[in-house]
Amino acid sequence: MKRILIVSAHPEPRSLNAALTAFAVDHLRAAGHEVRLSDLYAMKWKPTVDADDFPDHVSQEDRRLHVMRDSEEATLSGRLAPDIAAEQEKIRWSDALILQFPMWWFSTPAILKGWIDRVFTSGFGYGPEVPPPYDDNGSALAGRRALLSVTLGARETAFSDRGIHGRLTDVLHPLQHGLFWFTGMTPLEPFAVYDTDRMPAERYAPAREAYARRLDALFTETPVPFRPLTGGDYDHDMRLLPGRERPGTEGLDLHTRPAPRPGLSR
Amino acid sequence: MKRILIVSAHPEPRSLNAALTAFAVDHLRAAGHEVRLSDLYAMKWKPTVDADDFPDHVSQEDRRLHVMRDSEEATLSGRLAPDIAAEQEKIRWSDALILQFPMWWFSTPAILKGWIDRVFTSGFGYGPEVPPPYDDNGSALAGRRALLSVTLGARETAFSDRGIHGRLTDVLHPLQHGLFWFTGMTPLEPFAVYDTDRMPAERYAPAREAYARRLDALFTETPVPFRPLTGGDYDHDMRLLPGRERPGTEGLDLHTRPAPRPGLSR
Repeated sequence: MKRILIVSAHPEPRSLNAALTAFAVDHLRAAGHEVRLSDLYAMKWKPTVDADDFPDHVSQEDRRLHVMRDSEEATLSGRLAPDIAAEQEKIRWSDALILQFPMWWFSTPAILKGWIDRVFTSGFGYGPEVPPPYDDNGSALAGRRALLSVTLGARETAFSDRGIHGRLTDVLHPLQHGLFWFTGMTPLEPFAVYDTDRMPAERYAPAREAYARRLDALFTETPVPFRPLTGGDYDHDMRLLPGRERPGTEGLDLHTRPAPRPGLSR
Repeated sequence: MKRILIVSAHPEPRSLNAALTAFAVDHLRAAGHEVRLSDLYAMKWKPTVDADDFPDHVSQEDRRLHVMRDSEEATLSGRLAPDIAAEQEKIRWSDALILQFPMWWFSTPAILKGWIDRVFTSGFGYGPEVPPPYDDNGSALAGRRALLSVTLGARETAFSDRGIHGRLTDVLHPLQHGLFWFTGMTPLEPFAVYDTDRMPAERYAPAREAYARRLDALFTETPVPFRPLTGGDYDHDMRLLPGRERPGTEGLDLHTRPAPRPGLSR
């Protein structure tokens, strides 16, 4: 039995995203897991970071709001706004985190970005008082699996290797590597449903079945092989050392370990 | 004389982002341009897309909210929420758009993501009633230059070609290519100030001067050479045709035209 937190971000309770969320809750519970749900629209989640997030700051009118410093002080002193503290507690409790959202403008809806901005404070997700980032053995949130479940209006070809929207893996890099891996979580390959703009009803059952297989493998499948910062691959300026990558590799692919070539024993 | 819209997203009026915004407004006006400013925190911008954005929808309680369809209908019928319509009018008015923000979690603050989510509706930024995307000659917002001005807590090396955070150009791809280029705008190289977490005061003047040089070149510098969808480089499934790229290129670099090699006349 594991503990799973699902964070869902869609304004319409009858949407595909809401259906996938409800399905995941039921499916994981039926498998014996504990599940908690943060349905951000239903919770009327406040998306904007501001001084109200750090109650101690409010009384200091003459002091500039410095988001990183003030969020860190509030985190370490246990004086964050209660809605933020509650979400942090859910993440600490969890063995796995699932983010369910429609891709809007090649990223999360603003309400989910605001959950990330406000919850992953310095002192909680990273920062001087916790171990260094990019390390699944020791970073702040290490030990948790992390899955993006995303719906996309576009066709899959447009997000394929040569698709004009960019590879899905590159478009989601800020979340997979920048949020999950940075804080020490273990990112899995995203689960994606394409061409959902006016999706016919008969496509829902196959999508749900495909999602069920991913949920069943949540704690067993091989994660994305991002490189740890502290594993000897990077220099002191956080740059990948020469020669560590497959020859010709560029861009974001530098930061995954090269896959063993098929047919080559290692 | 040109018309420039600056959209700024920081909660603290005494922040570096606020200073760069104020500097840009003054500098561009001193050069004879017209400038409008959307200071999202000062405006208390609503970040979340919901049914209130489309007043005609509210009266139809039994109808599911379908964000793309409902936003498109509201856009084409002139029935969007007034705050959205006002921002669309500013963009239509502009010859250039500047987004000023601190990078939070490898993306924009939620309030700015919510400006993007709500303002760039189907029917305005893209959609069946406007020309196809990814074309600076014809897409919905063609004719406008677009500049990201971003502050980053990290050091520049961590966002360099081999830096662990990913190349800045890849991390900003969802905005540069996914928002600006998709809607037909002409993206420039981003302006970035690094290592801003506790930036000493003496670094502000050089940063301001560097920004001034970029602002002076807003309408003259060479833009990022993204490929147009309709220029013959992509197939009908929106995939780059074989052989169009510099050999060995992969990932997001596929979608820029190869630079002429130094010393090679073309």
